Amino acid sequence: MHWYKGNSSCVLLPENTQQISSILSHCYKRKLAVVPQSGNTGLVGGSIPMHDEIILSMKKFTKNFELDSTSGILECDSGFVLEEVDNRIAKEGYMVPVDLGAKGSCLLGGVVATNAGGIRLIRYGSMHANVTGLEVVLPNEQGQILRLGSPLRKDNADLHLHKLFIGSEGQLGVITKVFMQVVPRPLSVHSALIGVNSFEKCQQILKIGKQMLNEIISSFEFIDGESMKMVKENAGLDCPLSILSNFFLLIETSGSNEEHDSSKMDKFLTKILESGLAEDGVLAKNASEADQLWKIRESCPLAIRKDGYVFKHDFSLPLKYFYELPEAVRKQLNGKAKRIISFGHIGDGNVHINVSIPEYDQKIYDLLYPFVYEWVYSKGGSISAEHGIGHVKRTFHHNLVNPKIREISSSIKKLFDPKGILSPYKMIDF
Amino acid sequence: MHWYKGNSSCVLLPENTQQISSILSHCYKRKLAVVPQSGNTGLVGGSIPMHDEIILSMKKFTKNFELDSTSGILECDSGFVLEEVDNRIAKEGYMVPVDLGAKGSCLLGGVVATNAGGIRLIRYGSMHANVTGLEVVLPNEQGQILRLGSPLRKDNADLHLHKLFIGSEGQLGVITKVFMQVVPRPLSVHSALIGVNSFEKCQQILKIGKQMLNEIISSFEFIDGESMKMVKENAGLDCPLSILSNFFLLIETSGSNEEHDSSKMDKFLTKILESGLAEDGVLAKNASEADQLWKIRESCPLAIRKDGYVFKHDFSLPLKYFYELPEAVRKQLNGKAKRIISFGHIGDGNVHINVSIPEYDQKIYDLLYPFVYEWVYSKGGSISAEHGIGHVKRTFHHNLVNPKIREISSSIKKLFDPKGILSPYKMIDF
Repeated sequence: MHWYKGNSSCVLLPENTQQISSILSHCYKRKLAVVPQSGNTGLVGGSIPMHDEIILSMKKFTKNFELDSTSGILECDSGFVLEEVDNRIAKEGYMVPVDLGAKGSCLLGGVVATNAGGIRLIRYGSMHANVTGLEVVLPNEQGQILRLGSPLRKDNADLHLHKLFIGSEGQLGVITKVFMQVVPRPLSVHSALIGVNSFEKCQQILKIGKQMLNEIISSFEFIDGESMKMVKENAGLDCPLSILSNFFLLIETSGSNEEHDSSKMDKFLTKILESGLAEDGVLAKNASEADQLWKIRESCPLAIRKDGYVFKHDFSLPLKYFYELPEAVRKQLNGKAKRIISFGHIGDGNVHINVSIPEYDQKIYDLLYPFVYEWVYSKGGSISAEHGIGHVKRTFHHNLVNPKIREISSSIKKLFDPKGILSPYKMIDF
Repeated sequence: MHWYKGNSSCVLLPENTQQISSILSHCYKRKLAVVPQSGNTGLVGGSIPMHDEIILSMKKFTKNFELDSTSGILECDSGFVLEEVDNRIAKEGYMVPVDLGAKGSCLLGGVVATNAGGIRLIRYGSMHANVTGLEVVLPNEQGQILRLGSPLRKDNADLHLHKLFIGSEGQLGVITKVFMQVVPRPLSVHSALIGVNSFEKCQQILKIGKQMLNEIISSFEFIDGESMKMVKENAGLDCPLSILSNFFLLIETSGSNEEHDSSKMDKFLTKILESGLAEDGVLAKNASEADQLWKIRESCPLAIRKDGYVFKHDFSLPLKYFYELPEAVRKQLNGKAKRIISFGHIGDGNVHINVSIPEYDQKIYDLLYPFVYEWVYSKGGSISAEHGIGHVKRTFHHNLVNPKIREISSSIKKLFDPKGILSPYKMIDF
């Protein structure tokens, strides 16, 4: 995105836990700041050195990898690229439950540290649902190595401390090993795109989809008409439906039986088309057609950059406010934006609203912020659904959150990181 | 179980959050100890007053209950009985994802506070997979009311502090409101019991089951031959299979399509019977036959009490050690027990080994403890899979766990409960 320019004159690339322990112990003693860095794919500057922090890159931390193919528990070092983890376990019929655009470059430890969500959370849950334990190294005198949680699916023998590290953005300790459950790889995948003329109907279709597609739903994605127009103009991708609807839903099922899954998807599509909830719909006949549908969805965050400068957002909202947000932003900007598009994971309440302008304009910035964060907060939403707080949202976050919660988070940081050397100037205060 | 006799001369039954806040503020100022109590169904004494603690019963805390039927997010007070929650949301086609023997009396807040597991964890995950946020009241000067997490499925705008309360056994604060996702209620449920002659084959069947039954597996339970004999002798329940195998697996599927689910289950049973992995098998033809199968499994922990005194255990183990445990205990007790039975949730690695003797005998106790805890720990297992630590396992737990982890847990307790008044003498040190 070229939004950040980091400052660091030192990048370390440890290859084992003991090296990380020594580094953190040394940095603790000399009070040197360190920022752990995984695939460097984040959008909120969480892994960027803000001043002169030492970068602790996890890219070479890829030694241990072990899958118990009966229990489906994976133990592996945090430096593996997400897609590589997925490819390795595919041989045993398993799949990593989390899937996101950056899978080809993000590292597993970074996915855990940011609790990254992605397109299949509706089916498999967040990292909290799948990570059973972690090995972490603390930035204290000994560079202490701790195993928190375990590789066991059920373990209630302690406070669930590893949960604190999921979504901690690397500010409590360095995640070195991940214990997680992986899921059976689907043998049958179907994707369909439907056009819908009101947001009310999108919600009804979501409810019917959850009932009729039930155990095989794996994605329920949302693309508004403005996004579809943008994808056509900026990326030359044609919508395969004949009508340009106000809204589009991209629905994916994953299951173990081709015939059963086809039958469920057919019945669902027939129902929503015949009842008039959907205006039009297309079911991908093969993997190549499915790829075409997904290309439209995946182009949304990327193709808009062609417009010039893009304000990107990652909010969660109660569904009733999901599409009131773009309308509120349109009103606020009153024609001053080139484009306001909205897409995301409607099944999870996660909306990515993007605002494009020809080039950066402080006046537009001032109209947008803090307006949009306050609006989301006032509706009971979250200003960070899946991309975290990092450096970018720090000030807004601090102004909006209950001070007692900040105080507790800060005290917890001090417990793990007594001198505050790990990833300073980010989500958690020291 | 009549294992515990609590000491308390005061039971409070608050009906709203403000009352709990006032109680905790008052108790903080006067340094009075308080123990929150939900359904009082625990097995480790977590909700029992050990000395003169005031009991804060949550039984009347049942005012707010709201389901968003589109998003499937439930917001409700923590005092509802689990089964009542399930019945209420059934009308909208939803189900509570956690199911356990005590569902008719345990309260939702207690299920969260103990991270109770149960029989469907293999499908729906633990409370961490389903609880998105909590309202809690802290035992501090103001009796502070905090909302941690949110009713949103994706929310990464903070440390995930509510996760600390899941499994905290009521030692950090009083859980007053639960935000959780609920799941579509299955329209088709099938149960089968199979007999298997080796534990190695049980593991192979689990692996095949996860592939072939995939998205519809909802339980994968284990009953050993000794348990089956005990259920016959103590509860008069006949095994519906013709051979008394060494092991039995009770497998349940839950899905949305009767025909599809039947077909998957038939193919699975045919495969494991024809390949010789299973000795015999029976598929319940209707709900009444399914109830008969489940009655066998559910009688295991209860019917053994007829033997006299029962040492009960709740361990998680890596699967390769799952059935080495009863063998190790048999060797250790060398014929001194009346019965050693083993049953549990093999799909989650959770084994409940029960040892019965005619009446309590300190010599047997001394042979069992700390031997059995140390054995489990040495195999990378957990001494508390789903029942927690409470008071009963406190000493063993403290001897086995890494002291740094105890130190961190203790510091976290002090953050939330500065005077240590909440549920003392339990899992977390003050």
